[in-house]
Amino acid sequence: MTATIAETTDLTGQMLIAGALVSGTGDEIRGVDPAAGTPLEPAYRYGDDSHVDAACAAAAEAFGPYRATTSERRARFLEAIAANIEAISTPLIARAVAESGLPQARITGEVGRTTGQLRLFAAVLREGSWTGARIDPALPDRAPLPRPDIRQRSIPLGPVAVFGASNFPLAFSVAGGDTASALAAGCPVVVKAHDAHPGTSELVGRAIADAVAAEGMPAGTFSLLYGYGPALGTALVTDPRIKAVGFTGSRSGGMALVAAAAARPEPIPVYAEMSSINPVFLLDGALASRGSDLGRAFVGSLTMGSGQFCTNPGLVIAVDGPGLDAFVAAAREALEQSAATPMLTSDIAARYAAGVESLGAEAELVVRGAEGDGGGTCQAALFTTDAGRFSGSEVLQAEVFGSSSLIVRCADADEVKAVAENLEGQLTATVHADEADHEAAATLLPTLETKAGRILFNGWPTGVEVGYAQVHGGPFPATSDSRTTSVGARAIERFLRPVAYQDVPKGLLPSEIADGNPDALWRRVDGRLTKD
Amino acid sequence: MTATIAETTDLTGQMLIAGALVSGTGDEIRGVDPAAGTPLEPAYRYGDDSHVDAACAAAAEAFGPYRATTSERRARFLEAIAANIEAISTPLIARAVAESGLPQARITGEVGRTTGQLRLFAAVLREGSWTGARIDPALPDRAPLPRPDIRQRSIPLGPVAVFGASNFPLAFSVAGGDTASALAAGCPVVVKAHDAHPGTSELVGRAIADAVAAEGMPAGTFSLLYGYGPALGTALVTDPRIKAVGFTGSRSGGMALVAAAAARPEPIPVYAEMSSINPVFLLDGALASRGSDLGRAFVGSLTMGSGQFCTNPGLVIAVDGPGLDAFVAAAREALEQSAATPMLTSDIAARYAAGVESLGAEAELVVRGAEGDGGGTCQAALFTTDAGRFSGSEVLQAEVFGSSSLIVRCADADEVKAVAENLEGQLTATVHADEADHEAAATLLPTLETKAGRILFNGWPTGVEVGYAQVHGGPFPATSDSRTTSVGARAIERFLRPVAYQDVPKGLLPSEIADGNPDALWRRVDGRLTKD
Repeated sequence: MTATIAETTDLTGQMLIAGALVSGTGDEIRGVDPAAGTPLEPAYRYGDDSHVDAACAAAAEAFGPYRATTSERRARFLEAIAANIEAISTPLIARAVAESGLPQARITGEVGRTTGQLRLFAAVLREGSWTGARIDPALPDRAPLPRPDIRQRSIPLGPVAVFGASNFPLAFSVAGGDTASALAAGCPVVVKAHDAHPGTSELVGRAIADAVAAEGMPAGTFSLLYGYGPALGTALVTDPRIKAVGFTGSRSGGMALVAAAAARPEPIPVYAEMSSINPVFLLDGALASRGSDLGRAFVGSLTMGSGQFCTNPGLVIAVDGPGLDAFVAAAREALEQSAATPMLTSDIAARYAAGVESLGAEAELVVRGAEGDGGGTCQAALFTTDAGRFSGSEVLQAEVFGSSSLIVRCADADEVKAVAENLEGQLTATVHADEADHEAAATLLPTLETKAGRILFNGWPTGVEVGYAQVHGGPFPATSDSRTTSVGARAIERFLRPVAYQDVPKGLLPSEIADGNPDALWRRVDGRLTKD
Repeated sequence: MTATIAETTDLTGQMLIAGALVSGTGDEIRGVDPAAGTPLEPAYRYGDDSHVDAACAAAAEAFGPYRATTSERRARFLEAIAANIEAISTPLIARAVAESGLPQARITGEVGRTTGQLRLFAAVLREGSWTGARIDPALPDRAPLPRPDIRQRSIPLGPVAVFGASNFPLAFSVAGGDTASALAAGCPVVVKAHDAHPGTSELVGRAIADAVAAEGMPAGTFSLLYGYGPALGTALVTDPRIKAVGFTGSRSGGMALVAAAAARPEPIPVYAEMSSINPVFLLDGALASRGSDLGRAFVGSLTMGSGQFCTNPGLVIAVDGPGLDAFVAAAREALEQSAATPMLTSDIAARYAAGVESLGAEAELVVRGAEGDGGGTCQAALFTTDAGRFSGSEVLQAEVFGSSSLIVRCADADEVKAVAENLEGQLTATVHADEADHEAAATLLPTLETKAGRILFNGWPTGVEVGYAQVHGGPFPATSDSRTTSVGARAIERFLRPVAYQDVPKGLLPSEIADGNPDALWRRVDGRLTKD
């Protein structure tokens, strides 16, 4: 069966359940080339509840043996997935470009990002601190009562449901950050593919299934389903064998999953990365010294990938004056010259157009970008308003997914701070500041910390570095769980829970917390970090 | 105002809002001596929405300056609370004994546990790893794109609502583990006192308020309210300024708070420790070698504190045979001699009686303990059933808060494992095993790991050690969030979230993640732990 999967990169139009290719039974969907508007072969049929049941049963069966594998074996498994993806990168990039309308250079970079994420988690596994090993040795002579021996390690939650995102067909999809971190933690994964890139999903799914087989992991460690979100997606999230959910997408989609998970007899955590307008604060000194440059750079960040980033700069906040005028003038000029670029799907393009119309009803238009020659493209849009109107409006604070942004002109620094304090939770907050602005920036920083998962200076939020210190998260509604990150090494923590072992006989202790530190981990012994 | 609070240990019957004594406006409650059934002076009147508003407004105002204090200052603040509690220990113990009906030795121990917890978090603050400091240094020459400088630290969530528990009037109440860990994290706390011990709550609340004043913390760092759970409690959890909730109590009470928090415009985490029957597995060798001893020790754990522990052993699972017969015979004999002891409140006693009646309708009675001479006491109860009836019954799996337990007689080890696999989530799972049982224990362990927060061998679950490695938590319904612990050093993590700082100018970085490691912390630099 594995041979069947690996033999060809031709697409089958089938789902993957525990290593087996399985045909759907429901509605037919196809990838669509958004640039040309043409449907792509093959057709994919939606799965039904029986497929959810089969995938979850296999995941539950796989969970025990999969979580019992060593960190080293799971590290090699993740590396095998990365290698399999690289081995098919030519057809994969071609298909992802065709299905997303994103430029080839961007998709090529995303392949590197996806394999880089898998290898980061391999490194996290080998380093070993993810196990959270702690030992409080027994104190048999303590009075009035002896202290027992208590040890702690983290174990995986169980099978995880992952929902592929539209806007990163590789890095936040079938083998994206959620899948990589859940597999690293020891959780089998059932992915619901995003309708916008079914072929890309199949190719990546087969790369994972091949690695499962080649590395001798249980077949149910990975499954890939296609389906209608409110039907198959809900069935997946409410299956009792699923113990956590990773999602990147819209606020309404994320909140539907959060509600479904909370209503289960056994509620489970949902990590939904949903909605953010990513405020950019332009401080006075920076505006005065480089307002025009900032305006041009801003448009570069705003229009990249048709603005289809969770971290797109949808809000600019500054004190009114000549510096801001220069910024707006430069942005206007750059936007006027910006080409209309395809959006991921016609639905997304339609929602973008509606969002821009809503903004236009409440804010003043600065400029639109070039109009496209058909439906499905993103005509950039820049609006302006004042602080009073902004803070009083839900519409002006809502995310418009695409190259649209709103400039809030403030009377003074106090009004800037008041606007910041009224913001909802955000993935990012950006500050452009010169040396002379540092005092003002210091005043703003504590507020930004309570609003955003990442604070950046003198850059643009659209690049999200994958590393050990990254946070791609933030207070609601940016995410449904501000205590976590979906990008970077700490993403693994979302799928773990601690277990304490009290007076467990030596021969029965897991190696992470065994005497003599056989795994050579950093462990916290009596509260102190040590490798002894 | 502070002088007023500190001048006297006489009880005022008032709430404490940001350092001020404030009279309630609603229904009057009193502490009740459950042994004598007599109400105690003074009366306490419930607060209303205006008191919730005042406490939350003060907490929100305090949040900024409070979280800006150094770890060292917050450590000293926690130590000052502990010292203040010790300074009033004589009247405090007397009042807590009177209000709870618990023995003086137990309450004296609980004072030590409470101050010990506060000092543990002082040590956690000084050690500094709670800050989660991480640095991925810039790589300006990286191709194709330079890497920015990204640093991460954890910051507190914001004001926290804490609900005092009935069964630990000190250690899980006003200055209990939730309050200590939230204050350590940098979160102001608003406590809703439990009706069962209003005087104890006032004494401890004043100890905290005095420490707030003496250590120069913002007044709103701490408030103490009295109120009806479904009214004032709900108002507190749904106040937009509250950012997390700590609760220990019943499943219905916890789930009501979870639902209220999830329905907020901005949902917030609720850490509810709710319901656990704490299965005890008696393996064959242990039963054969020491069945009678285990039976007697089991009754000691079962009847301690009238069984009013979250970790009370409410379920015993073993293979039928002479060893289990010896266990049951010894337990019967010990239970027959067990005195009826007062329960915390007459409500709890009534719910206990109803729970025992429910069990009796579905399981076979082994023995009851001595009958009390009035209402309000706990008459211990031991039942038995077989595996088939147990696994088919919700009633037999439900927690009965008090000295009641159920023995499940299994046909063989496979049936024991099947019973384990059908259990709901638990705070603890206990195994009694001799050397010869280790293979059987190893077979059972992976199942127990997925069911419980703490696994203990050859002991009893009722003692919960406070330390670095402890887990007092577990899968639903033991808690509403299995990823956390409410006891031990890691409890602080419940009130933190990570923030990333990208290319933030040196002068604006928090000291935890500043160059040169001025706080001398263990930090993760490029993924490696170091103190450099």
